[in-house]
Amino acid sequence: MKMDQLLGFRFKETPSDAQIESHILMLRGGYIKNVGSGIFSLYPPAKRIIQKIERIVREEMDAIDGQEIFLPVSMPASLWKESGRYDSVGSELLRFQDRWGSDMVLGMTHEEAVVHLCRDAAQSYQNYPFMVYQIQTKFRDETRPRAGLIRVREFTMKDAYSFHATQEDLEAYYARAHKAYENVFVRCGLPETISVQSDSGMMGGKIAHEFMLITPAGEDYLAICEACDFRSNMEIAPCIVENKAEEAASLEKIHTPGTKTIEALCEFLGITEKQTCKAVLYQKNATVAESAGHDYVVIFIRGDLEVNEIKLRNLLGEEVHPAVDASDAFTCGFIGPVGLQLPKGAVVLYDKSLAGTSNLVTGACEDDYHVKGFTIARDVENVSFCDIAKILDGGICPTCGKPAIALKRGVEVGNIFQLGTKYSESMNMTFLDQNGKTQHPIMGCYGIGVTRTMAAVCEASHDDYGPIWPMAIAPWQVHICAIRGDDPEVKAAANGLYESLQAQGVEVLFDDRKVSAGFMFSDADLMGVPVRVIVSPKTIARGVLELKTRDKSVARDIAIDTAAEEVKALVRELQGA
Amino acid sequence: MKMDQLLGFRFKETPSDAQIESHILMLRGGYIKNVGSGIFSLYPPAKRIIQKIERIVREEMDAIDGQEIFLPVSMPASLWKESGRYDSVGSELLRFQDRWGSDMVLGMTHEEAVVHLCRDAAQSYQNYPFMVYQIQTKFRDETRPRAGLIRVREFTMKDAYSFHATQEDLEAYYARAHKAYENVFVRCGLPETISVQSDSGMMGGKIAHEFMLITPAGEDYLAICEACDFRSNMEIAPCIVENKAEEAASLEKIHTPGTKTIEALCEFLGITEKQTCKAVLYQKNATVAESAGHDYVVIFIRGDLEVNEIKLRNLLGEEVHPAVDASDAFTCGFIGPVGLQLPKGAVVLYDKSLAGTSNLVTGACEDDYHVKGFTIARDVENVSFCDIAKILDGGICPTCGKPAIALKRGVEVGNIFQLGTKYSESMNMTFLDQNGKTQHPIMGCYGIGVTRTMAAVCEASHDDYGPIWPMAIAPWQVHICAIRGDDPEVKAAANGLYESLQAQGVEVLFDDRKVSAGFMFSDADLMGVPVRVIVSPKTIARGVLELKTRDKSVARDIAIDTAAEEVKALVRELQGA
Repeated sequence: MKMDQLLGFRFKETPSDAQIESHILMLRGGYIKNVGSGIFSLYPPAKRIIQKIERIVREEMDAIDGQEIFLPVSMPASLWKESGRYDSVGSELLRFQDRWGSDMVLGMTHEEAVVHLCRDAAQSYQNYPFMVYQIQTKFRDETRPRAGLIRVREFTMKDAYSFHATQEDLEAYYARAHKAYENVFVRCGLPETISVQSDSGMMGGKIAHEFMLITPAGEDYLAICEACDFRSNMEIAPCIVENKAEEAASLEKIHTPGTKTIEALCEFLGITEKQTCKAVLYQKNATVAESAGHDYVVIFIRGDLEVNEIKLRNLLGEEVHPAVDASDAFTCGFIGPVGLQLPKGAVVLYDKSLAGTSNLVTGACEDDYHVKGFTIARDVENVSFCDIAKILDGGICPTCGKPAIALKRGVEVGNIFQLGTKYSESMNMTFLDQNGKTQHPIMGCYGIGVTRTMAAVCEASHDDYGPIWPMAIAPWQVHICAIRGDDPEVKAAANGLYESLQAQGVEVLFDDRKVSAGFMFSDADLMGVPVRVIVSPKTIARGVLELKTRDKSVARDIAIDTAAEEVKALVRELQGA
Repeated sequence: MKMDQLLGFRFKETPSDAQIESHILMLRGGYIKNVGSGIFSLYPPAKRIIQKIERIVREEMDAIDGQEIFLPVSMPASLWKESGRYDSVGSELLRFQDRWGSDMVLGMTHEEAVVHLCRDAAQSYQNYPFMVYQIQTKFRDETRPRAGLIRVREFTMKDAYSFHATQEDLEAYYARAHKAYENVFVRCGLPETISVQSDSGMMGGKIAHEFMLITPAGEDYLAICEACDFRSNMEIAPCIVENKAEEAASLEKIHTPGTKTIEALCEFLGITEKQTCKAVLYQKNATVAESAGHDYVVIFIRGDLEVNEIKLRNLLGEEVHPAVDASDAFTCGFIGPVGLQLPKGAVVLYDKSLAGTSNLVTGACEDDYHVKGFTIARDVENVSFCDIAKILDGGICPTCGKPAIALKRGVEVGNIFQLGTKYSESMNMTFLDQNGKTQHPIMGCYGIGVTRTMAAVCEASHDDYGPIWPMAIAPWQVHICAIRGDDPEVKAAANGLYESLQAQGVEVLFDDRKVSAGFMFSDADLMGVPVRVIVSPKTIARGVLELKTRDKSVARDIAIDTAAEEVKALVRELQGA
């Protein structure tokens, strides 16, 4: 490819709408263009990278017996009504009507469609197990598209679905898929990707793992133990708190005017947040539209901790949202376990962080008053605790028990789920087992964000001047910079190398534009091609070409007449790496 | 691939909802499954075929300097408002609102998106020409999805767009693209595909060609001259009519009670349709909602001909529809050019077929009366003729003048358009030419229906038992049928051949299921794999395997120990064909 024919353009300025490096560099390098909120077009270099990622994904999916299929982007709503998700999934599921007024959805994931495809085709235990996958456009109507290709509304995804006759078989396959995912990310140039336990969210099922690239640009928080191998999405990491036993003082009401927040209370009394018990109010989503005051959820938690809404949702088995205005039902800012009057339908939950506490300060259920000396075992009857708090940085590891939890940010590049029979039951997919008994197959599902993986690689592998693409997914393998390409000797050497490499199947980007060396090099840095060859009157005068790698690990002169062989050898070496 | 692991199932019965052969066979063979009206999922064999077609398309697009890109399926409506098509295209354009209530569309074609992508990137004449393409899902909300994968709502399409500084350059590139399209269809196994001149429809532009596979299953009518190389979509083929001069009789009113149709009139008077002048009424779409009686279009045409609505639309420059109920404004059934009272805003058009006619019978503009002796040159003042009639089978060729027009049905598998500056002007894409003057680039666009091409190949190449896939796009290259695969000798020979071929990179489907030979062969016929090898106790007893082709052109025994080489040689021979 000649650089002057490549569609796209590169620029120096940091785009005002881009915060993270991959977004900035992929805009500056002519990889992507924003079409609408969370919607991008891809220029040729990005499309080339995507195709290489897809090839790696295909090879790894084929290696674990995957069969490639294709499911539609647009689907009749009836399929999603069968599974129940037409109602249970929020407005990230894009619903629309076609020309006949029929309800339709745009696929954000394809469990329904894949069960529809497979349910006639696998009616005997002999058909199991099998796995099918596709690589395809998905649409998810995100509330907050951000970070370039990291969180978008339309994206390319590989989604795979496995079907099993037994749970053991699913588990064995799940382990194979886990290994295949590790292979994919290593081959794409993200060897530092880790898998963490995760919440299965709207997918359903119990066991799930996310593949996370640790990076400050990530939007997920991970709890990683630095003393053992515990790794979890913070969403589901158990929060372990140890409270020291202390002699209980008597309960005493104190005047705390205007101290509606824990911060204000602590400042007023000169105590730490750990010495308080705070109330956090939620409401169940299902009853938002009904009369106010019903179905509140009151959570008591130690004052220094936060409620983890994912855990709360999983505990309740339904969606919740922070209470909007509860002043009709509660003495807000002064709520405490003692003397609390609950509106009808309300639920009270106590976080584990309160277990074993004594002498806390908490609300007195009366405006401008708190109580001190609150000792939960004494002051609350029949209390039972549950785990609803967010794990803290430096917190106790639930596996090894050491206070070695580090919170890190990560980008999720893949996820795998043991779905169980959620979809095969709701959509009535069955098979006859060896005993002639009707069973629902047990499913797993396995996703990789293809466009997001490209952005993640850029995030993990770049410098101030541009992306540093790994050889396996680089848009081209070699970038020839011919400085003063009009000079006959430069032209002869550069063209000769270009033609020789192309003839040998090496992917070459060839820049012989009449631009300055500085301009050419900054463009080359933005293209991020791993191997660069510089031809100029100066190198010709020395009888050599300059061979460099984008990551600066190689920089040496090579003889003109053996250049093609040396370049090809370096490409092969970097392919093997 | 082992047949017993392949997802999908095959059956004998003709599905009740399928009319054409490709639809029937692709359902029966386990290639596709209907998800909703005009929406299909693809089983693994179909996906494999699609990928091979895509590879051929990519190679041919790359060979004419195409750069692959990716444009979004979902787009903000603002882009389509820029070009004016948000309003001008009918409800086949799927419009929806996202979670914020913003207007969006699903891409049915991508002129707007590609101009958006390219307009910043090609601001100098030095950037021209260039061509970009993508292979991607499109959604078109068709009124009448039909014929399996021939007319669907969601489909995979290759769409390419070229940009040029001059019309000459577009024309030269258009010829290259035409040749590349011929290559694509020959390589995919549709050498009989022809290109015909076509209407540019909603795309805009003047010159356009469609690539048509002639087949009774087609939904387009083509006018093909059997005496010269004239080939055109019937939609735009000029209709040439020769009328013999005749002495004009006088105009005379005649009583023709109840003869509201040309058939009734001819029967009543004992004349032929050619001896009449009929009126056909249309209304312009833009005024449907306004008060009735306005903006009628009255067409007079020789009684044996039909109005071609595409020509009419192009002539008027706007959309029309047959008049719904015009009885308030006209003496319907008895309309004629003489004495016609036109409602306000109405237009009268005379088709060329009336030029030189004498002594026709036509309406008298009075209930139950016609006139005879109508001689247009004498009876209508300042008449001017236009070409609005449909060309007839056996009609006169507009190129060679011989009455050699044959009407044939065809499936459109590709189309190419010289778009001109419709999009670059409306969306303000400009470049500076060599003289520093601002110009709009001149565009071409080039589409291939990938899923439809698969169906077209099946339509062109099948027998009663299944598809006969050409080697270049066949889901597998070789199909091994091991009859009595539990027989140790059969097993050894079949497994040995399977492993040997796979090791040499041949794509093999291997059937060693415990089923009867008849069952196995009818499945194999439905899979349509070009080369088949049969291993059975009988062939083993003869010391051979049977080598056959799906199209029956080859059927011979081969020695067991040289089987792999012979099979591979046949595969290579068929690849070359």
